[in-house]
Amino acid sequence: MNVLRSYVGGAWVVGQGELETLVNPATEEPLAQAGSGGIDRSAALEFARAKGGAALRALTFAERGALLKGVCDQIQAHREELIDLAVANGGNTRSDAKFDIDGATFTLSTYAEIGKGLGNLKVLADGEGVTLGRMARFHGQHILTPRHGVAIHINAFNFPAWGMAEKAATALLAGMPVLSKPATSSAIVSHRIMELLVEKAVLPEGALSLLVGGVGDLLDHVGAQDVIAFTGSGATGEKIRSRTSVIARSVRVNVEADSLNAAILGPDGEAGSEIYDYFMKDVLRDMTQKAGQKCTAIRRVLVPAAVADRLRDDLSDRLKAVVVGNPAHESVRMGPLATKQQQEDVTDGIAALARDGRLVHGSAQVEAVGVPDGKGFFVGPVLIEVEPGAAAPTVHSREVFGPVATVVPYDGSASAAAEIVGRGQGGLVSSVYSEDAAFAGELTLGLAPFHGRVFLGSAKIAEQSPGPGTVLPTLVHGGPGRAGGGEELGGLRGLSFYMQRTALEGSRPVIDRIVKPPS
Amino acid sequence: MNVLRSYVGGAWVVGQGELETLVNPATEEPLAQAGSGGIDRSAALEFARAKGGAALRALTFAERGALLKGVCDQIQAHREELIDLAVANGGNTRSDAKFDIDGATFTLSTYAEIGKGLGNLKVLADGEGVTLGRMARFHGQHILTPRHGVAIHINAFNFPAWGMAEKAATALLAGMPVLSKPATSSAIVSHRIMELLVEKAVLPEGALSLLVGGVGDLLDHVGAQDVIAFTGSGATGEKIRSRTSVIARSVRVNVEADSLNAAILGPDGEAGSEIYDYFMKDVLRDMTQKAGQKCTAIRRVLVPAAVADRLRDDLSDRLKAVVVGNPAHESVRMGPLATKQQQEDVTDGIAALARDGRLVHGSAQVEAVGVPDGKGFFVGPVLIEVEPGAAAPTVHSREVFGPVATVVPYDGSASAAAEIVGRGQGGLVSSVYSEDAAFAGELTLGLAPFHGRVFLGSAKIAEQSPGPGTVLPTLVHGGPGRAGGGEELGGLRGLSFYMQRTALEGSRPVIDRIVKPPS
Repeated sequence: MNVLRSYVGGAWVVGQGELETLVNPATEEPLAQAGSGGIDRSAALEFARAKGGAALRALTFAERGALLKGVCDQIQAHREELIDLAVANGGNTRSDAKFDIDGATFTLSTYAEIGKGLGNLKVLADGEGVTLGRMARFHGQHILTPRHGVAIHINAFNFPAWGMAEKAATALLAGMPVLSKPATSSAIVSHRIMELLVEKAVLPEGALSLLVGGVGDLLDHVGAQDVIAFTGSGATGEKIRSRTSVIARSVRVNVEADSLNAAILGPDGEAGSEIYDYFMKDVLRDMTQKAGQKCTAIRRVLVPAAVADRLRDDLSDRLKAVVVGNPAHESVRMGPLATKQQQEDVTDGIAALARDGRLVHGSAQVEAVGVPDGKGFFVGPVLIEVEPGAAAPTVHSREVFGPVATVVPYDGSASAAAEIVGRGQGGLVSSVYSEDAAFAGELTLGLAPFHGRVFLGSAKIAEQSPGPGTVLPTLVHGGPGRAGGGEELGGLRGLSFYMQRTALEGSRPVIDRIVKPPS
Repeated sequence: MNVLRSYVGGAWVVGQGELETLVNPATEEPLAQAGSGGIDRSAALEFARAKGGAALRALTFAERGALLKGVCDQIQAHREELIDLAVANGGNTRSDAKFDIDGATFTLSTYAEIGKGLGNLKVLADGEGVTLGRMARFHGQHILTPRHGVAIHINAFNFPAWGMAEKAATALLAGMPVLSKPATSSAIVSHRIMELLVEKAVLPEGALSLLVGGVGDLLDHVGAQDVIAFTGSGATGEKIRSRTSVIARSVRVNVEADSLNAAILGPDGEAGSEIYDYFMKDVLRDMTQKAGQKCTAIRRVLVPAAVADRLRDDLSDRLKAVVVGNPAHESVRMGPLATKQQQEDVTDGIAALARDGRLVHGSAQVEAVGVPDGKGFFVGPVLIEVEPGAAAPTVHSREVFGPVATVVPYDGSASAAAEIVGRGQGGLVSSVYSEDAAFAGELTLGLAPFHGRVFLGSAKIAEQSPGPGTVLPTLVHGGPGRAGGGEELGGLRGLSFYMQRTALEGSRPVIDRIVKPPS
């Protein structure tokens, strides 16, 4: 069987010892093996720092942007092949797979453009200069320069292309080399992308490394100039944050973790109204796209009590029509979960959520189309509802990472909606669906302190918008509290995690000479 | 004896159980007692969140700025009294005490002005809007809103006024209530400031609390919207960061810790030149001001090997003239360290540094003027030198928090200087003294990734500049790695730690309505 290798120290390396088998989650057919035993993590990091860091820092932003364009072009040129791999290894429908691959290329091309726009700069000015003394000559100016370490990226299983690309795009453009560790279960797509980049020598030596398999002692070797960006469970995020090496060296850590994203239908969302239909469509997409395995997917569906029963019934009807099964089959609208473990976690989660209220549609068990009997990690689409005013502690605290959402009726006031959503203790994104600008404004300000993004759904943007579940490279992605307290992307903002902000204080002509681009 | 109280839950509270005695560090005369036993930290935090947070969020930035002006005015009105307290309890000379008190008022007035400039806004726009779709209507805009928690400020012993004021100024202007915990040994100044503010009801109820005495279980009660800003030792910073409650709730933590700040004399700094004299003056000030107890003080003095001996001798001559003793005496130029513990740590540190090279001036033991025999926590001003090219592991890793510096000769090249300074693994500030703009520029870029601030010393700014050891409110203060990885101040930037950045995504008119100031 095909054994996935790691690309570290400028060479492909096969892991020693026990190997993990990667399967098709719809059929459980083995696809490849992977392991990272015996790989010298310390040497891998040092190579990235020494070779990759120096090479990237020697380039201008425009030149680094051109590298991202090169990465983007490779993925684009092999789009069909990568989609097929994502369908097989990720349990993705073709539409899910495109979402991942095209998300990667869109993010890369956006950051390539940002790099191009920065031109021949190597140092970023941060804000305007300030006069410090009585005379303008005594001057201050903040700058951003690339950190001299390596960016360790620990990615989630759900977006092997996009997740890898979005983190790498910002780090590489900032001038930091990357060591990327995909989740093993779905690593075939990341691995193939790495192969394409190595074959064509798209990036300078050491700029991008790939560790396929377990993390091992990787994090024991972090240094004071390194950074770690992690996407995954809150529990793993806590482990990374509490690591002695990370704390002792003040290593920057960015965590994107659990999030109980809410979608709130405004009091104007009467049954059958345009906004009602738009709201339901977005909820339905978020429940079923990637089988609900998106960190931004809607988990809590807040609706005015007056329309809660109707919405529950309408949504249940739509969910009935969702064909679940092997995504290689054309009729299938929703694939399996990524792993057996995920299937078990989601099954447990459904039972726990249902104890807060009642299960109104679906179940963990589901008839899967085009799948050998008893095979595949499938879970229903499941809808739960709670009573108006219910405390629903599990609904507001447990992220069930699958095609599962809970209808939570509220009294139609912005203050009540904000209070209920706030019980989630911080999230990545919540969304407000209303044409009532006063309601939307009040609720948005109530939600903002608890979220990295607030999506304002309105019929006026319905045709253009990908909905709240889609991360956009020009907007920040992350959230406080339970969501991990992190922040990624956001256009140019995304680079600052990989750079050191430094205040320069001195004589203006000397400082201007440092900050201004070489001509 | 006077017992210092805590101000929590809107009332003065006396700590129960054992009390600590605060002394005059020059004479060891007892001045007051303090303790925080039995104080309900959870209730104190909840009061601040509920009362103080709501009150501050209801105000505009201009109104919060006016509050800071009120705080500033109170300190200004009692400046002489506060200076006397700092001389008695802090071991400060009058000049040291003014540095602390005036640093506080300058920072408060700077942030009061920033608030005034923001006018009647309650929400800050972060950057420009972005077009997200094919049509301009689908729009993105980042905003900053105050977090709904409490800002816990744990301050260092060296700046009871300035440290408290600079952290409180940014938090309060951002709209977050503050619970401030001064270091117990020098808490008399912070306590008196709090009394002044309470007497005149300068701030809304709950906006500022003061916990005098031990932290106790304070940090067990932090929530997902709280933040912690700490200034002090790296070891304590690690303890705060690794706390289970802090990690589990993704509580934002800002740490300002150890820093081996370097000052580098350029190759043009020949003995007797203007820049040579200016350099030596700044080194001398940083060694003796506050008896070297500034987190930004110069610890490593890098000089071209050609002038190293001369500079060592000239600096030693100047240090000989420094009169050490009871700062209440007019002739005294340098006072004692803050505590017996600090005296012991610095004495040990001097011995350790000397093993990297040799002690060329002074010693831990010193004749102190105007002090009862054997009393006071005095340490000499001490100069150490190392050989050119020496590894000097202790010099580059151990912060000795007193009037101690080490002369480190280098070959006069920017790359060598950057390499040597980089061994410190990240610092708050380093400084380059040279009139050679090419050298200064190259070295500045070499230092920037390892520092929060780089000071460029030049005769052209000598008269206006307070030197690298002075933190300015409009420039960031903090540094990567050993320095704790934190960032404070920096004008408007300082507010973002206390606010949540949120991307708004939706229809432009709706978003503009939220972001634009009410008229």
